[in-house]
Order: sequence, then structure tokens, then C-alpha cells
Amino acid sequence: MTSDAPVRVALLGCGTVGSEVVRLLEDQAGDLTARVGAPVELAGVAVRRPHRHPELNPDLVTTDASALVTRDDVDVVVEVVGGIEPARTLLLQAIKSGKSVVTANKALLAEDGATLAEAADAAGVDLYYEASVAGAIPLLRPLRESLAGDRITRVAGIVNGTTNFILSAMSASGAGYAEALEEATRLGYAEADPTADVDGYDAASKAAILATIAFHTRVTAADVHCEGIRRVTAADIAAARGLGCAIKLLAICERVPGSGGAPESVSARVYPAMIPLSHPLAGVDGAFNAVFVEADAAGQLMFYGQGAGGAPTASAVLGDLVAVARNRVAGGRGPRESAYASLPVLPIGDVHTRYHVSLEVADRAGVLSAVAGEFARRGVSIAAVRQTGGREDGDVPEAEAAEEELAARLVVVTHGAPDSALHATVEALAGLDVVRGVESVLRVEGLGRPVSTLGVAG
Amino acid sequence: MTSDAPVRVALLGCGTVGSEVVRLLEDQAGDLTARVGAPVELAGVAVRRPHRHPELNPDLVTTDASALVTRDDVDVVVEVVGGIEPARTLLLQAIKSGKSVVTANKALLAEDGATLAEAADAAGVDLYYEASVAGAIPLLRPLRESLAGDRITRVAGIVNGTTNFILSAMSASGAGYAEALEEATRLGYAEADPTADVDGYDAASKAAILATIAFHTRVTAADVHCEGIRRVTAADIAAARGLGCAIKLLAICERVPGSGGAPESVSARVYPAMIPLSHPLAGVDGAFNAVFVEADAAGQLMFYGQGAGGAPTASAVLGDLVAVARNRVAGGRGPRESAYASLPVLPIGDVHTRYHVSLEVADRAGVLSAVAGEFARRGVSIAAVRQTGGREDGDVPEAEAAEEELAARLVVVTHGAPDSALHATVEALAGLDVVRGVESVLRVEGLGRPVSTLGVAG
Repeated sequence: MTSDAPVRVALLGCGTVGSEVVRLLEDQAGDLTARVGAPVELAGVAVRRPHRHPELNPDLVTTDASALVTRDDVDVVVEVVGGIEPARTLLLQAIKSGKSVVTANKALLAEDGATLAEAADAAGVDLYYEASVAGAIPLLRPLRESLAGDRITRVAGIVNGTTNFILSAMSASGAGYAEALEEATRLGYAEADPTADVDGYDAASKAAILATIAFHTRVTAADVHCEGIRRVTAADIAAARGLGCAIKLLAICERVPGSGGAPESVSARVYPAMIPLSHPLAGVDGAFNAVFVEADAAGQLMFYGQGAGGAPTASAVLGDLVAVARNRVAGGRGPRESAYASLPVLPIGDVHTRYHVSLEVADRAGVLSAVAGEFARRGVSIAAVRQTGGREDGDVPEAEAAEEELAARLVVVTHGAPDSALHATVEALAGLDVVRGVESVLRVEGLGRPVSTLGVAG
Repeated sequence: MTSDAPVRVALLGCGTVGSEVVRLLEDQAGDLTARVGAPVELAGVAVRRPHRHPELNPDLVTTDASALVTRDDVDVVVEVVGGIEPARTLLLQAIKSGKSVVTANKALLAEDGATLAEAADAAGVDLYYEASVAGAIPLLRPLRESLAGDRITRVAGIVNGTTNFILSAMSASGAGYAEALEEATRLGYAEADPTADVDGYDAASKAAILATIAFHTRVTAADVHCEGIRRVTAADIAAARGLGCAIKLLAICERVPGSGGAPESVSARVYPAMIPLSHPLAGVDGAFNAVFVEADAAGQLMFYGQGAGGAPTASAVLGDLVAVARNRVAGGRGPRESAYASLPVLPIGDVHTRYHVSLEVADRAGVLSAVAGEFARRGVSIAAVRQTGGREDGDVPEAEAAEEELAARLVVVTHGAPDSALHATVEALAGLDVVRGVESVLRVEGLGRPVSTLGVAG
């Protein structure tokens, strides 16, 4: 199907991503026309400070975004401003005016995607947002369409480039968190205020979007348990390496089978975790993103690429724009989001995780017994124990033999247990006389690979 | 949009993949209904030998595929038989009867995809074939849709699990080709007649499909230069490792910029090649597939997963089936294949490649001069030379100094040059008095990474 009538696009925002969208629309005009079946034209660009955009045709520039998104000659609105407001109000105006929407706005989608999706359904328009997660990596479309006949059980990955750059730098150079953050800021990988990245909020928004699509269940950012990387130390990275692991900030979305009286549920969480170096995600360094997907029939899949940056994100925006424009020309709509499964979201306390706990302990007999007792009391099984420093720097092959040699540092790796039990155990440990301090607590994730020993016991 | 009227599916073939399709249709019935907006029902299964399928409802089984695909109550035809005929005739019948088609038939698509695509266009039905390349890995949809606003420059990957299993086994154990093939056959990774896999024909079909989609240009299997892995030896694998490389059977589809009077063109080729161990593709072992994609704006992407097998392939078929069924319910069509760019396909002789040549040479002075002369005569620049065995087993730091020490084995790695010049050079070398034999010829691919030294010179 082809048409002479162009598909006209309103662009909201013209920063790093928006300017690349404008460039691609110009550079690829001929190809886009062939692929869409009609020319794709820029109808207007809404920016706050027009004088900062001398490169744009002044006739296209406006500061009145609200007027632009409701203009009769606009077919599609592309939003790359970010943030909740005014983006939400503008996109709802656009949708109600019959415009299809392409957005990269993860924060908005994770907070209130339902409102947008319902408005799009009511108006019979498209709402596409591939660029909101993992930049240029095709991920939402494969999850929603390619795996539409399968049962996805896990989506886990590295979806924040800033934190992955920092953790990679710490791992490569032995630098501490503050030093690595400084380097990331200097090189432009971290923003002046890095909170959204380093505290995990950005990854949590993406986890909410991924879980919603993968499990056909509405998951919001508030449903995602979120811990950042500020407390990860050089010692943690070294300890992980000693166990054959890397530390990565993971976004994990899992389908949790029902058991006993509990129904099937989903878990969505973000935290730094140790993963085996043999896992493909462990080798993803620098600002790259990678997402690991498991489905019943498809098995294990991995998607890898640039998760941020102007051009990669614009590539994802343009892919959506072509799809939406093609649907306009053909008079149809793409597949909509569906939340028909409506599975409950499991609280973090009920999620089974594994802990790696490093304690500074008194250098005397009876310590391991006291520590082990706190785990046992809460039904947490210990997978491995190692003590270092103090009178003897060696392994602890057996609890009994070890007790009299207990030394300054005790590392415990647990088997899987409810996170609440693990958390309570650590709190109790902190209160023990023999424990001088809880040096670090990290979760351990196998992501489908066995991590039962981690080399920690021997 | 939802409908009570079911979407009715005719299945052609019920082997490894087809039986998994049947299973998934049953197991996921509820989810499929929710995702499609209407129930998806099996209307019939065409098989050659009904008595071999006691698991199927006898009412659904038929040996008359032609009658099944034209039946009024069938909406979608799923073909997992493979081979050119009768699949082509049946699918054309189905399309002309207004049925949408989902097929995993790479051989047919690579030989005559244009006929099917044109028929589907004329009839206004969908033709989907994600399962034809790389099994469960979402690849065609991302290339066609997610990257629709970008300019793809390269698609290169490991798309045949049998040969990757064999090469991985050779690499892991030092086994020769014959021994590794035997193991692959015993474990079910290779068929009794492994020709299609080990001679590269299967990968060549996939390369044709990938190049067609990536470059909007009709590429057939006959356009793909194809070499298999039969001549790869244990010595080649060892030599590659010595250079920091792995040997992989690669399907490479590239956009070749125009230069001088030559227009922009595309290259599609399959051969075993050395790639740096640092490249992500080098770590893809066993029966796994992985495809590396480069695009102007998106940068480098990688897709990884199971490339074959009943369940993974059925997952891809079901994903297509959901899309096609959804389009039926909504009254629309998915994006069609487009060959608007119609770029010329570059003959292999004109493609710039790099060679790694291993020669058995006479152990006397003047050999390097004679060998180097043949390269120079054809304008091929040598990147590195190494000699081993004979009177001295060491490096050759400079040609002059080396000549008098020339020994029994000479390895030459070239810079990039037209494949025809490289090929002609090797033919000429074989005719030299001082060359006792050409032990092996392998191409070297950087795939976007520098491989200028490969450690070979020092």
C-alpha cells in the first residue's frame, strides 16, 4: 500500500535523542518513504528554548507543545522529553486527538503506562515505546511479538549503562565507587546528578516495563524492589572475583510458580548481585546493555547492544515511527499491550534469593556457632563459609574444626531462602556481640546456571 | 479487538517442529486466545504417514495437503515440511485461496521467496517466516521492524548449529573433522546425510534471507558464495588459537559502499573464517546460534540463542502465528518484505577479504622472496609472515634477514584484497617449485574489530 499523502510527525524535545531523530528523518527520507509507503515529514518541533536550536528550520519550531500535538495536520507524536509532566498531559492530549504516539519515556510508562495504554485503546491509535528500554536493542518487540506464542519465565539483564560503566571500571582498575563515578561523570557516562542511575530508579522503570510486557501483567515502578550501587565497594568486587563472580546491577523479572495455596506471581527487582563469570551477562562491560530472556519453548536468548546515547536511542524511535506510520497508511493498528494475566506481584520479602554476607567478627572461639545459629533460627541454609584474616588465613572446611580458628573476617554464602528471612538474619547478626560489623551484603544470582558452590567453600 | 470466531490453522508436517507446534497450541490455548483476541484452533494436520501419529486426533489428520490448504474453514497455513516441492505448490495454493502463511522453510524462501512474496502481496495475505533463520532467536522481525528506521550495514553470524557444534568440539578436544562429525551424528546434532549443514548450504539459505531483509534487495541462495567446513583440520584450529582466533562458519551479509564508478552493492557469503577470540561471536559454542548486526545509528547489536530444535523453532512459528492471527482478527496485514533498493550483488571475486595461508615450503634460501613475489604481483599486501619447523623454529622479523633461515612451514596473513586476487595468488603459489604444498587457506574476518596483526608477526 502506498500513498502520496505524507505521514506528518510532531517531535517533542530536541536534545541528544531528538536531534538524532531529526537527522535520521532527513538522511533516510527516501528509504523511509519506501518502507512506510508514504513520505514521513516533520510537521513541528516543540522545544523550550528555540534560540538553542539554530539548526532547525524556524518555521517548524514552537514552544507551544500543547498546540502542536493537537494540530490537525499532525499524524504521529514522538516524545523524547522525558519525565512525568508535562509529558503525560501532552501525550494524552495527542492520543485523544487521534494521533499515534512514539515515546522513549520510561519514567512515565513505568509510573502510569496503564493510563496511556487505555487512552490509546479508546482512541484506536498506536502507542509504541521500544526506545524506553535498552536503547537500540530490539527488546520490547521481540518480547511482545516474537515470543507471543511462548511462555516467558525470566527477563534479566543489565539495562543501565551508567552503573555498568562504573562497576566495570571498578572491576578493571580496582577503583572505589566514588573514583569510578567521577570517571564516569568526566567521560559523560554519568549525569551531574547521577541519582536516577546509581540508585537504580532508571533500571527499576525498565524492569516495570519489561515485566508488564513479558507477563501480560501491569507492573509499575512502585512494584519494583530497588537497590542501587552506592554501597558496592572495591572489596566487594575483589571478593566476587575470588568466587568466580562479577557484580552487576541487574533488573530481574521472573515468573514465580504458585505453590501451596499461593497463586502464580511475578517478581520484579533491581539490585547489584554476584553472577558467575561463566554467565554471558558477566562479560557485558562498559556502557553496553544486555538482556537475557528465558521462555519455555525458546529456551535461553540474549540481546546485546548499546543501551543509551543519541543515535542508538533514535534508531529505536525511528523503528517505532516506521511501524506506526505504516499502520497509518494501511489503516490498521499494531498489537496492543495486554495485561490480561493480571498476576500478583510478589513482595521482595517473599522472593527466594541468596545472600553473600561478609562480617567482621571477634577473633575467638564460638563465633561461627553464634553466626550459624542466627541463620538456622530463620530456616536459612548455609551453602559455604570462609574465614580470612585474624589468627589464621585459610578455609574453614568444617564448622566444628573451624570454631577455634575463627578470625577477623567471616564470609557466608547461603542457599536460596525468602529474602525477608535473609534480611532478618543479617539484622540479627549485626546485633551479635561477636560481630563487630556487617561489611557487605550482596545477593547471588545464578540466572539459570548453578551457583551452588561458587568455589567459596574450597 | 476480540472475536468469538476462531482463527483456524492448517498444519503441514508433524515431525520434530510440527509436533511441538501442536503441543504449544494446546498448552497455551488460553493465553493464545487472550493475545490474539480470538481462539486459535487446529483445523487439520497433513502428514504422509498417518499411522505414525497416534497422538493426533484422527479427525484432524489427512494425507491430502492440497485439499487442506484450500479448505474454506482454514485461515492460516503453517508449513514445517521443508524442501522446495511440494511445499512451494502448496503454499502458493494456500495464498491464492486467501490464507495467510507461516513457514520455517529456509530452502524455499532462499530459492524462490520472491514468488511467495509477490503472491502474498497480490492476495493481500501475510507471509511470515521467523523460524526459517536461527530458530527461536528473534531476528527477522527486529531486522525488518525494529531497525526499519536505520541503515543496516552488516549482518554476520553463526546460523548453523551442526557446524558450530563440530567446530566447537574440534576446538575443545583437538579432534579432527571426521571424529567431531561422528560425535555430532551420535548425539543427534548432525543428520545421517550432513551435506546441507557441513557444506554450508543451510547457512547460505539463511544468508540469502537475512540479506534480502537487511538490504531491501532480493538475494537468493544462488547469489551466496558458499564454502563448508569439510576441509577444516585440527591443525587449522590449533593455528587459529595460536593467533588468538577461533574458526567459525560464518554467514556474512554486508553492504559494500560504492567507489569509483562502482555502485553500492551487497555481499552475501558463507565460509569458515578465523575471528578474534575477543569478538563476542568467538565465544558462541556448541549448537547455539548468534548473529551480530551493525547499523549506522544503532551501532553493534548481538542476538543469541538456540538456532534449531523442535521447541525453539516451534516458539518462533507460534510467534508468527499469533501475529498473523491477530492481523486476521483486526482485518489488517503485517509489514511486507520490500526489495525496493534492488542493490547489485557483488561477486565473491570482488569482495575484499583477508587470507591466512599455510604453505609447506622447501627448506632453503629464496623461498620467502618467491612467495612474497606472487602476492606483490597481484597487488596483495602481506600483513604478517611466520615460519616454523625446518632449520629454525622462530619468527621472521624481517624478510631480508629471514630468507636464509626459511624453513618447512610458512604462514602468511594478508591485508584486505579482492578475493579473486587472493585466490589467484594461492593458485600461483601452488605452482611454485619451492612450495611443496598449500596446507590450508582460511579467510580472516575482523567483523568490525581490528585484526591487523593477529599476533602473527611477533
